[in-house]
Amino acid sequence: MPEHEMQPAFVLVRPQMGENIGAAARAMWNFGLERMRLVSPRDGWPNPRAVAMASGAGRLLDQAELCETLDAAIGDLTHVLATTARPRDLTREVLTPEQAMQRMRGIIADGGRPGILFGPERAGLENADIAAADALVSVPVNPRFGSLNLAQSVLLLAYEWGRLSDLAPPAQRGEGAQQDVLGRASKAEIKALSEHYEEELEQAGFFFPPDKAASMRLNLRAMWGRLPLSSADVRMLHGMLRQLVRRKG
Amino acid sequence: MPEHEMQPAFVLVRPQMGENIGAAARAMWNFGLERMRLVSPRDGWPNPRAVAMASGAGRLLDQAELCETLDAAIGDLTHVLATTARPRDLTREVLTPEQAMQRMRGIIADGGRPGILFGPERAGLENADIAAADALVSVPVNPRFGSLNLAQSVLLLAYEWGRLSDLAPPAQRGEGAQQDVLGRASKAEIKALSEHYEEELEQAGFFFPPDKAASMRLNLRAMWGRLPLSSADVRMLHGMLRQLVRRKG
Repeated sequence: MPEHEMQPAFVLVRPQMGENIGAAARAMWNFGLERMRLVSPRDGWPNPRAVAMASGAGRLLDQAELCETLDAAIGDLTHVLATTARPRDLTREVLTPEQAMQRMRGIIADGGRPGILFGPERAGLENADIAAADALVSVPVNPRFGSLNLAQSVLLLAYEWGRLSDLAPPAQRGEGAQQDVLGRASKAEIKALSEHYEEELEQAGFFFPPDKAASMRLNLRAMWGRLPLSSADVRMLHGMLRQLVRRKG
Repeated sequence: MPEHEMQPAFVLVRPQMGENIGAAARAMWNFGLERMRLVSPRDGWPNPRAVAMASGAGRLLDQAELCETLDAAIGDLTHVLATTARPRDLTREVLTPEQAMQRMRGIIADGGRPGILFGPERAGLENADIAAADALVSVPVNPRFGSLNLAQSVLLLAYEWGRLSDLAPPAQRGEGAQQDVLGRASKAEIKALSEHYEEELEQAGFFFPPDKAASMRLNLRAMWGRLPLSSADVRMLHGMLRQLVRRKG
């Protein structure tokens, strides 16, 4: 099965502004999704405003499947979810984006072909559109303020797909964390640093008065031991100390 | 504690377009977030384009804290995360949005005051901005295509905040962890410490040769910014430095 068939189709139903179609394409491609379908876009197709907005994700528009009716757009799908701002149809299950994308993964793993519907900018999906859906998806927003636009809804759903994806390599995370661990100073380096400071501070009369000296030393060692210093930090801290005490001579 | 103080501050650093500030406010308010701070917005403040775009979330703009410098904007915070598209600073931990918001919840539960930085539209945060951050946040996007704009980044972080709000409050932490967070130095304390060291090291001729001085200073600031220092650590480090340089006299 080609990789793109292991993704849900994102179906924009009667989208109005070309800009929003382009922005939706960008939002999808940020998270590796590339199967867009368009049902009867208001301003016809292709749409130069969509192309201009999609820059970098234009391929999704070129490959988008254009359909006259919603039935045609979802005919080959086995499962359909419908996004809605305010779930009105209480007979239908309402999923969070996370639940929706988990379900889509399960469907695909079982050999199904899922899709998700997004309504027109102003009014959203009509009851007739929703009739074909197995369940609804709604982003839980502030009850006092919900103002997600089409491209933002697509973005959040696509983000959830990416978040749950084991396929998409979270490259940044791995590299940084690994580097952090690799660059971490050894306990021997920390000990040498701690001793260097303790020695010079002793010379400078820092551990005073005498009855507090022991606990001051302990605090200092505890601080060096607790801080996540890299080997480079340790070298810099040695160099700083050497330079600070050199002045005295 | 007022409800809004139990939220992370969203700090927009040198934002350019008023429209994006307004869109960021809407994105935040969708998920109940209302603590916005603005560092030196390019087109001044207030900005009518921001107001027009924010419709419905205008209150966030009215109440936004306007700051001239990043230091002023984060001075009272105990923990700062910095968003970045391509993590360059490999010495710093890189979190996903989910990890970032989980951490912020834990910090707030422990009495800390966290914030999250968003850079200007074109270039993102500079290394000097990132120096004060405890860790980075990066949305894992398609390695072949990453095109999130400012308001979209804000939206995804705000969404993660909202998503985790539905879950149970963060697990109880040990006494030690709580003590650690409560004692955490504010960013203003860290800045003063950093300046104290920089000044004395300057006097001591540490920043040499001249062509390396700028990067040495940045490394030093980045180290102070990254280390989880307590207020007690900071006092000790000030005291150590004073004592070390006193000898010379």
